[in-house]
Amino acid sequence: MIELSKFPFKTEKVAPKISDNKSTSLLLQAGLIRQTMAWVYNYTTLWLRVLKKIENIVREELNNYNCYEILMSWISPQDVWEKTNRWEIEEYFKLPTYWWKFYRLNPTHEEIVVPLLKQFVKSYKDLPTCVYQIQTKYRNEKRAKSWLLRWREFIMKDAYSFHITEDDFQNFYNWMIKTYKKIFDRLWIWKDTYVTLADWWSFTDKFSHEFQTILDVWEDLIYIDEKEWISYNQEIAPSMVWTENISEKELKKREDVKLPKNIVWVDNISKYLWIPKEKTTKTLFFIADEKRFVVASVRWDYDINEMKLKKVVNAKMLRLANESEIKDKIWTDIWFAWIINLPDNVELYLDDSLKWLTNFETWTNKNWYHSLNINFWIDLKNPEKFYDFKNAKIWDKNPKTWNKYIVKKASEVWNIFPLENKYSKPFDLKILNKDWKEVDVIMWCYWIGVSRLMWVVAEYFMKDNWIAWPENLAPADYYIIVLQNNLEKAKNIAKNLEKSWKEVILDDRKWKKFWFGVKIKDAELLWIPNIIIVSDNTLQKWWYELRKLWEDEWKIVKL
Amino acid sequence: MIELSKFPFKTEKVAPKISDNKSTSLLLQAGLIRQTMAWVYNYTTLWLRVLKKIENIVREELNNYNCYEILMSWISPQDVWEKTNRWEIEEYFKLPTYWWKFYRLNPTHEEIVVPLLKQFVKSYKDLPTCVYQIQTKYRNEKRAKSWLLRWREFIMKDAYSFHITEDDFQNFYNWMIKTYKKIFDRLWIWKDTYVTLADWWSFTDKFSHEFQTILDVWEDLIYIDEKEWISYNQEIAPSMVWTENISEKELKKREDVKLPKNIVWVDNISKYLWIPKEKTTKTLFFIADEKRFVVASVRWDYDINEMKLKKVVNAKMLRLANESEIKDKIWTDIWFAWIINLPDNVELYLDDSLKWLTNFETWTNKNWYHSLNINFWIDLKNPEKFYDFKNAKIWDKNPKTWNKYIVKKASEVWNIFPLENKYSKPFDLKILNKDWKEVDVIMWCYWIGVSRLMWVVAEYFMKDNWIAWPENLAPADYYIIVLQNNLEKAKNIAKNLEKSWKEVILDDRKWKKFWFGVKIKDAELLWIPNIIIVSDNTLQKWWYELRKLWEDEWKIVKL
Repeated sequence: MIELSKFPFKTEKVAPKISDNKSTSLLLQAGLIRQTMAWVYNYTTLWLRVLKKIENIVREELNNYNCYEILMSWISPQDVWEKTNRWEIEEYFKLPTYWWKFYRLNPTHEEIVVPLLKQFVKSYKDLPTCVYQIQTKYRNEKRAKSWLLRWREFIMKDAYSFHITEDDFQNFYNWMIKTYKKIFDRLWIWKDTYVTLADWWSFTDKFSHEFQTILDVWEDLIYIDEKEWISYNQEIAPSMVWTENISEKELKKREDVKLPKNIVWVDNISKYLWIPKEKTTKTLFFIADEKRFVVASVRWDYDINEMKLKKVVNAKMLRLANESEIKDKIWTDIWFAWIINLPDNVELYLDDSLKWLTNFETWTNKNWYHSLNINFWIDLKNPEKFYDFKNAKIWDKNPKTWNKYIVKKASEVWNIFPLENKYSKPFDLKILNKDWKEVDVIMWCYWIGVSRLMWVVAEYFMKDNWIAWPENLAPADYYIIVLQNNLEKAKNIAKNLEKSWKEVILDDRKWKKFWFGVKIKDAELLWIPNIIIVSDNTLQKWWYELRKLWEDEWKIVKL
Repeated sequence: MIELSKFPFKTEKVAPKISDNKSTSLLLQAGLIRQTMAWVYNYTTLWLRVLKKIENIVREELNNYNCYEILMSWISPQDVWEKTNRWEIEEYFKLPTYWWKFYRLNPTHEEIVVPLLKQFVKSYKDLPTCVYQIQTKYRNEKRAKSWLLRWREFIMKDAYSFHITEDDFQNFYNWMIKTYKKIFDRLWIWKDTYVTLADWWSFTDKFSHEFQTILDVWEDLIYIDEKEWISYNQEIAPSMVWTENISEKELKKREDVKLPKNIVWVDNISKYLWIPKEKTTKTLFFIADEKRFVVASVRWDYDINEMKLKKVVNAKMLRLANESEIKDKIWTDIWFAWIINLPDNVELYLDDSLKWLTNFETWTNKNWYHSLNINFWIDLKNPEKFYDFKNAKIWDKNPKTWNKYIVKKASEVWNIFPLENKYSKPFDLKILNKDWKEVDVIMWCYWIGVSRLMWVVAEYFMKDNWIAWPENLAPADYYIIVLQNNLEKAKNIAKNLEKSWKEVILDDRKWKKFWFGVKIKDAELLWIPNIIIVSDNTLQKWWYELRKLWEDEWKIVKL
């Protein structure tokens, strides 16, 4: 039992003004957190309890699903990171030691878990298996993005599963999704949590999955198609234009015009030529896999999404071409390079936002020349197919279902990455399959940001004057308000509650200085779900008052 | 319940040969740990459980004593460490970030906890208070000392208490000692754990306390005087010589002899002059507080303990004098500077190992001259007092009680440091006392190396073929051996045990390949205190066999 008269971490009348974010201010006011420096917090006793409760929910559900908790080392040697070509990643901390060596302060544990499991897992009979840990991780983050969500230190649950076939993984994964659903259900956030497709790993063409919880303090935008089971991260959402193109039925004849110098930007061009901006395109030039020259074009009001484009052109690497590469290839300066008059050895990709466009304009691929009244099928080579490689806009439709998206601000709470054999290969984690052949083990990993989840829960349950914790996450079960000189009796009630494993905060602060109003305000600020009032008045009649915050009703309970 | 058929972390028939230390080998054999690199280990599921059990014992006892668990940040900014002049300490890691800044990867948390508590603690009414955390800490250790005990990463319980007066602390501390006794009692190591005096902090003349557990894999030697309640770390043990000096009753007359060149070292001198080594002394020259010149001498077979000497001469700083400082002061080369013919402005301190020495020899403080038959009271200035500043030897006596010490190898499991106002001052943590005056807060800190304690417990309970865990620390409560086809019945027994909060390992590995002998051997290797055997034989009669490892007896238990 915490006796408030001795408890050091006091509430404040008003929140210390160090954060713009309201839920953070409420946590500060309740004395639950304090800063060490910007974005780095200390957790006081009651906030640590919330953390432990969340950790335990994660732990229980994973253990139920035969995932095994372990604890891997926080530091590791350079050589394992060199094996996977990840030693030089800037966002991973190197730890300088006395002598010539650096250690890695682990930001993730693939390089540790694979050599570990390799010592135990020998044949297909040992798989599938899954190990996880809940541990502090470190990132050398350039930006502490938004409010709270990206930090240089954070507590992470990272799980790693090992499989011999894709089928084995799929079977495992379907249950894993259910396990995670249970976790988010127990945190009371499932109803606003969406399974979201996202691309992350560049070495596979599989989508990774995220769980995103709808939150106004957003980090991501998610595109929900209510008819589909799954939603999309903005980064990869398939999109179909919603707004109509200005198409004219009568196709005009192409006309090339020489523009005076300094008429280069789209605004100037559209003014000078008296054409609407809607009739212009946005075109970029890429080098794919260091050998293919790719021209990609979208409608003027969209942007090209390189992640989507990479899939469309089926390249492992994609980068913007530089000025001299463009000049070498297209024989014109970068300003005038566009989509017509292209040489044969370039590949042209058109986004479907251009599909119904008629009589539109482009530069002619000839210095200072511009072409008007361009039309597909007539003026362009290879217009057989249109693709989707634009950044989705919130008013777009899902091309698969033709439904308009519902777009929400959300915060990522769970992530799954297909690691395939990226890590099992360099560490030579092979296994005998049923046919006695050695095969690479397939790996997946699953992340929950446990400390992030705490803040997500706080933000999600934030009200005007407090954070209304789910009952199972609150910093305590009971808050006993002692009025007048009833300390001993209140302590007895507390002790009885503790016998049935309830956590109790006993507000034994001096009556008169801390009158009823102060005490009930603190009980609400901390949002302890059950508030008991022990006073002369009630005790005379052998009962006490009980208020359940989530029901907001008062009960009389007999002693 | 852990079903061994699915559990990845298998035991081995023989221990992997990566450690000379036997308990480490047993842990490796049992599949409880694996290395990431030298001295850095991963904890698998069952070893993590032992860790958590130890953590919880520490936590429960401290919570009972109104210490409040918190969780402070792992990284901190440079400026707080500059305030206390600790930024440049080599053993503390600096973490290089993208931009010009370094962070500290916290090795200890004084610089964090003081600014934290300062935001909450305002008047004497708020004290005493004590906060603690259980957290991974990092040290840039030059040497990974012995076997396991000093690591670059380790899990630490660090507690910090805050007081307004020394009395308040003493009162608090007496209870704290009892709390720690309870902790070590629950770990079954109290009977071999000694409260040991040790000096650590240089800014105070108080002894710090350690708890030392007797262990053969030693880090420290402790000097136990069984008549005293407390023992001493070798570093500071008071000592009185046990062996007699060679004293002759007849005091001879001093004689100065010129030695030929190259007769400098004690071995040569004693041979050349035909005097026993026992009649020579060891003398060193120090500068105290950068102004006093101190000469200190002990019997030839002892060493000077600078920590003890510093107290004797009552200096804040003590360092060896260099050659030119000695020449300036004593007018002779360093080789010939000794204890007689000293100028008036030096201070001579004699260790009590010299007390009964007669007719002994020293250099004359004149180049190449040696003096024979030196005697106190006759040839030396200021021989009024003898002090104790030698390193104790194991055959020495305690000068306070004249008892011979019992000297044991031991490993430190708990530490207390008087921080006084060293940290409250730079962070201006002041408090109003009862007279409404602002005073510095007095701080103490208390460390338990939680991960170290795990290894200490393992080493302490190590037997020939297993580590015989205390019942409350074992990786599980029950190990159920399933023979023949009795899996369902065994699972029912397991489920019933789990209902009463028992942890169960179910050895459901395929009968025949894993026959009884293999299973019972693993149960013993893991030292699960209760082993249940479920077989056709027993089930027919509606019972199962139970073996209690600590009692080594077999029982028949009815279903």
